[in-house]
Amino acid sequence: MFVRNCWYVAGWDNDVGDEGFLSRTIINVPLVFWRDAAGKVIALEDRCCHRGAKLSMGRKENGGDCVRCMYHGLVFDRTGQCISAPAQDRLPPQAKVRSFPIVESHRWIWIWMGNPDRADESLIPDTRWLDHPEWRSQDGYLHYDVNYLLIADNLLDFSHLPFLHPTTVGGSTDYASVLPKVERGERGVRLTKWVKGTQPPAYSAKYANYPEGALVDRWMYYDFLAPGVLLMDSGMMPAGTGGNVEHRESALAFRGCQALTPETETSTHYFFAHPHNFLIDRPEVTKEIHAGIVHAFEEDRQMITSQQQNIELDPSFKMVPLGIDAALSQFRWVVDKLIREEQPS
Amino acid sequence: MFVRNCWYVAGWDNDVGDEGFLSRTIINVPLVFWRDAAGKVIALEDRCCHRGAKLSMGRKENGGDCVRCMYHGLVFDRTGQCISAPAQDRLPPQAKVRSFPIVESHRWIWIWMGNPDRADESLIPDTRWLDHPEWRSQDGYLHYDVNYLLIADNLLDFSHLPFLHPTTVGGSTDYASVLPKVERGERGVRLTKWVKGTQPPAYSAKYANYPEGALVDRWMYYDFLAPGVLLMDSGMMPAGTGGNVEHRESALAFRGCQALTPETETSTHYFFAHPHNFLIDRPEVTKEIHAGIVHAFEEDRQMITSQQQNIELDPSFKMVPLGIDAALSQFRWVVDKLIREEQPS
Amino acid sequence: MFVRNCWYVAGWDNDVGDEGFLSRTIINVPLVFWRDAAGKVIALEDRCCHRGAKLSMGRKENGGDCVRCMYHGLVFDRTGQCISAPAQDRLPPQAKVRSFPIVESHRWIWIWMGNPDRADESLIPDTRWLDHPEWRSQDGYLHYDVNYLLIADNLLDFSHLPFLHPTTVGGSTDYASVLPKVERGERGVRLTKWVKGTQPPAYSAKYANYPEGALVDRWMYYDFLAPGVLLMDSGMMPAGTGGNVEHRESALAFRGCQALTPETETSTHYFFAHPHNFLIDRPEVTKEIHAGIVHAFEEDRQMITSQQQNIELDPSFKMVPLGIDAALSQFRWVVDKLIREEQPS
Repeated sequence: MFVRNCWYVAGWDNDVGDEGFLSRTIINVPLVFWRDAAGKVIALEDRCCHRGAKLSMGRKENGGDCVRCMYHGLVFDRTGQCISAPAQDRLPPQAKVRSFPIVESHRWIWIWMGNPDRADESLIPDTRWLDHPEWRSQDGYLHYDVNYLLIADNLLDFSHLPFLHPTTVGGSTDYASVLPKVERGERGVRLTKWVKGTQPPAYSAKYANYPEGALVDRWMYYDFLAPGVLLMDSGMMPAGTGGNVEHRESALAFRGCQALTPETETSTHYFFAHPHNFLIDRPEVTKEIHAGIVHAFEEDRQMITSQQQNIELDPSFKMVPLGIDAALSQFRWVVDKLIREEQPS
Repeated sequence: MFVRNCWYVAGWDNDVGDEGFLSRTIINVPLVFWRDAAGKVIALEDRCCHRGAKLSMGRKENGGDCVRCMYHGLVFDRTGQCISAPAQDRLPPQAKVRSFPIVESHRWIWIWMGNPDRADESLIPDTRWLDHPEWRSQDGYLHYDVNYLLIADNLLDFSHLPFLHPTTVGGSTDYASVLPKVERGERGVRLTKWVKGTQPPAYSAKYANYPEGALVDRWMYYDFLAPGVLLMDSGMMPAGTGGNVEHRESALAFRGCQALTPETETSTHYFFAHPHNFLIDRPEVTKEIHAGIVHAFEEDRQMITSQQQNIELDPSFKMVPLGIDAALSQFRWVVDKLIREEQPS
Repeated sequence: MFVRNCWYVAGWDNDVGDEGFLSRTIINVPLVFWRDAAGKVIALEDRCCHRGAKLSMGRKENGGDCVRCMYHGLVFDRTGQCISAPAQDRLPPQAKVRSFPIVESHRWIWIWMGNPDRADESLIPDTRWLDHPEWRSQDGYLHYDVNYLLIADNLLDFSHLPFLHPTTVGGSTDYASVLPKVERGERGVRLTKWVKGTQPPAYSAKYANYPEGALVDRWMYYDFLAPGVLLMDSGMMPAGTGGNVEHRESALAFRGCQALTPETETSTHYFFAHPHNFLIDRPEVTKEIHAGIVHAFEEDRQMITSQQQNIELDPSFKMVPLGIDAALSQFRWVVDKLIREEQPS
């Protein structure tokens, strides 16, 4: 069961080039993406209504306004309607495939998987840091063989940072002992947390001009929006200066953007970047920060994949909730509510 | 569900050599094949009645009249009866494995998977072109990870030729706009089609002495017999001379022989050859024609495998029928009827 | 369904080193093994009660008395109780994982998978030959993708030796025609057998000083204890001198120790060694004997894996019992009885 009436990240904008097609499955629906002559992304179901072949194995026609299935030659327009088929004068009205609302915004391609009439662009999260001239980041993608909610759990409980990521984004274990403030909204949760007088995390400590061994105040403000977009304002400043995120003198700040897009019940697309606004004229800094994040996310992937395997060994396994799970419990409540609301009454 | 009372192609004659065994699964039944001293092919269930071991891991005895299971030493005669077991004076009557009627005919080994009493050799399709001195071809085999009916669909609708196989067997797209005449018989369908004044297909055009760029008349007469044997008379002649398949002056003709043998519900053996009767003293021509066919069949395999994957993503997917599907709708009707007739009433 | 109240072999003693963890699944339960400061083996469920992560991806603390889950930092003591979690003052009582009784005995680590209160060390089979100064062997391990009972069948019917293992442990086929005496006990079966005036098996014949081509008397006494431990006294002596296993002049003897430990319903751990008490000052002899055994067991693995595949093709397949199956029929009766007795009444 997935939320359908919501925007999912379908890919980085350059995943869909001017030539050819991108074939990607989202919440069990095979999709074909391409750009029309004007460069606008089109998304149709990647399963010909005739015999189920992949349209992404076909070819663009009419300057990119149409796709022709190269199995039997049916042509579909950008709305998914079949407009031509060999030896067929009258096309049956059900000869069509689903089309999906698409919006490109700040480097990401967003797709609405539910009722197109309800596609509300104002719900698209703001990821302006991905293409802002004063911020720098590299594009990240990981494929996970787990249910997306296990990754959401991970991103909703950063008390795991000092344990799982000691050499990158972790810092000292006192970081785990401060619980974030958790606020539940209509479509997600907001977490805010300050940890004062703590060790700086290894992956960014070297870019601050703080004295060797100096402690820092770390902040983390983020929204996690159902079903899976994380927008985070995080960073550190010299110990004793923290507490108010508006005052950022001598701060080192990041605006992490991450998106979980379920592929199937047991696999997930994971898009991410970690923009920073310091040393932006030094590409090697951006590269190193990205490498540190990728290293940490690979640690996550191994741990979460072991979780999935353990759950598959005993599907009746019941998790024991702890205080650190407040955010993820609230988030799962939101997801369940959204799914429930979509069911026919 | 498979048709059982029918002849399936079990293999090319040289798949079963004088030495050793062939192990091959057909409609979910593991089978062992070997040749007796006289060279006759024997087929038994490849699953010892004692503990289920593969007889094909055993050894021939009594000059090939028997097979000994090399797990515990049971010996089976050519009828599948166990005639000896260690430390066992009286063998229980149920100590036997199934045996299957086998007929070798024109390079193919045919097996009857249903009631042996109903095995009617007159039902074996005629593939004389596979070993006729005036025809030449190479042996082909492909393994598919799809249900055999998806491949049958492909072979029953050649309107896909110009789209999926433009560089080999395709020709121009007008070929797709002429629907074949479809006649349903007791055990299959017959398709006949002439396309006049069309482009010759690339894989054979070079062997005709027609002027550069000249159009041709193409014919295609074939029987598709349940569950999966295709016998085709096809070819081309200079444009304006076609219409009567009996008059073949300046024609270039083929007698394609193809057989689909289900391995399991989601995998299929595919045997094929494409005999020609021109330039038969030039082996490189036979080789080139075969290579063109193999290239085209690999295009089919990729497309049909994508179909299977799309159907598995949504088993409730309903195909939208078009006019070009007449033959395959009729054929599926025949297969369903044969299966229904085999059910106990 | 598995027997739970019994000792399984969890591994060779050196599978669990002083550093790090061993992660191994037994009867569907993921387990983590490690050694405490005193070198004693501890076994807990390898699935953190909090979110299901693998404790074996964690780290030892308190000198090896505890393990810390490196996902969120929970600490478990040697009894499986969670004694610490970040930002959590009061731990819920259900915050624990299962712990398992462990006994190390003669090179093997034994684990009791059922009710710890019923763990009876007197039930641990005696494998003293694995570390006896007058016996030599090498450690063996194989992983099987089959249900353990198919391997038990193999080990309970040595009439397969001359057929499946002619070049190693087999000997001549008359060996198969002598049925062993089978006695059923509370937790297993005992088989005894003498075969007189038979060929010596190839793997050990060369170490006897018998005349070239001389026949031998072979004995085989063994217990097969549910669910899967085989302890065997076997060997050969010059033909005409056999019949009484107490008189072993000129005999060549082995004390095979083998253990089947189910991993899942369709996979099995197989631990084995084949101690001998002759030529113990020549390591190359021990090595050769081991190689012969490994060769034979690989032959078994291929045959038994083919059985498993054949059974999966038709789960309704019914085995036809023969006289040689007496021991394995009795053994399956014992296993079924033990499982039945564990069900709540």
